[in-house]
Amino acid sequence: MKVVLCNCPPDKAEEIAKELVESRVAACVNILPHVKSFYHWDGKLCCDEEKTLLIKIRGHDFRVLQQKILQLHPNDVPEIVELNVSNVNAEYLKWLYASTGGEDA
Amino acid sequence: MKVVLCNCPPDKAEEIAKELVESRVAACVNILPHVKSFYHWDGKLCCDEEKTLLIKIRGHDFRVLQQKILQLHPNDVPEIVELNVSNVNAEYLKWLYASTGGEDA
Amino acid sequence: MKVVLCNCPPDKAEEIAKELVESRVAACVNILPHVKSFYHWDGKLCCDEEKTLLIKIRGHDFRVLQQKILQLHPNDVPEIVELNVSNVNAEYLKWLYASTGGEDA
Repeated sequence: MKVVLCNCPPDKAEEIAKELVESRVAACVNILPHVKSFYHWDGKLCCDEEKTLLIKIRGHDFRVLQQKILQLHPNDVPEIVELNVSNVNAEYLKWLYASTGGEDA
Repeated sequence: MKVVLCNCPPDKAEEIAKELVESRVAACVNILPHVKSFYHWDGKLCCDEEKTLLIKIRGHDFRVLQQKILQLHPNDVPEIVELNVSNVNAEYLKWLYASTGGEDA
Repeated sequence: MKVVLCNCPPDKAEEIAKELVESRVAACVNILPHVKSFYHWDGKLCCDEEKTLLIKIRGHDFRVLQQKILQLHPNDVPEIVELNVSNVNAEYLKWLYASTGGEDA
């Protein structure tokens, strides 16, 4: 499995999280609220309020997730960053597979 | 060292975090509040408020941590997901070892 | 690219995040608020309010980031923990490079 980070405008986070889980692309999505983000855009320093999504997926589903997020996300270049998982409790992994359509092929 | 994610019911997060640090299984636990989680359980889409724990442990302590969380956590299948760490400042790592019982064997 | 975790006293988080982005060491920093941290210091169990930074950098910039944080951070031993990234959407990676001074050498 993997954990994927994605930041969203506050008013879009729930819609995206819910759709990722309903469509079974993600087993679980946690929404972290009241996040303040600093970054450059068009050469200017920006500071926005966002919500951070922690998305739990099967090991080989990054492309499917990416495609789904790009359909749903309002930003031109959303952040979709997959973190490496080195260990997970077996029962949780079984549940993740059952929630998303079966074992990693 | 490793960073481990675990989500908890809001009223259990502090008790679990404190016990993990007091028992020296974890060097540090951060509790992220007001997290909204979407997931399926028994075929139904669920949406709960949780708190996310960021748990810092020695590199080889996942099994000990898992056992401890399974004793403390009220959920049948808690999420215990270990993220791979590729770098850490040396002084912090020294402190982590001193806080948990010594170097990675 | 990499994602780096760093915890800060609440009143220092924005200053550090802004400086990391303005100096182009980081492409983006997310600040997670109202974090409660348990840890030992000088043998005593401590519980402090902090803010957690999620710092996005190029793959080889950990040393530069570490040096910068050590200059800015008030704690003796700040947590600077780099998480391994296994995948990222290409457009976001291009933007990250443009925001920080070009491709990973």
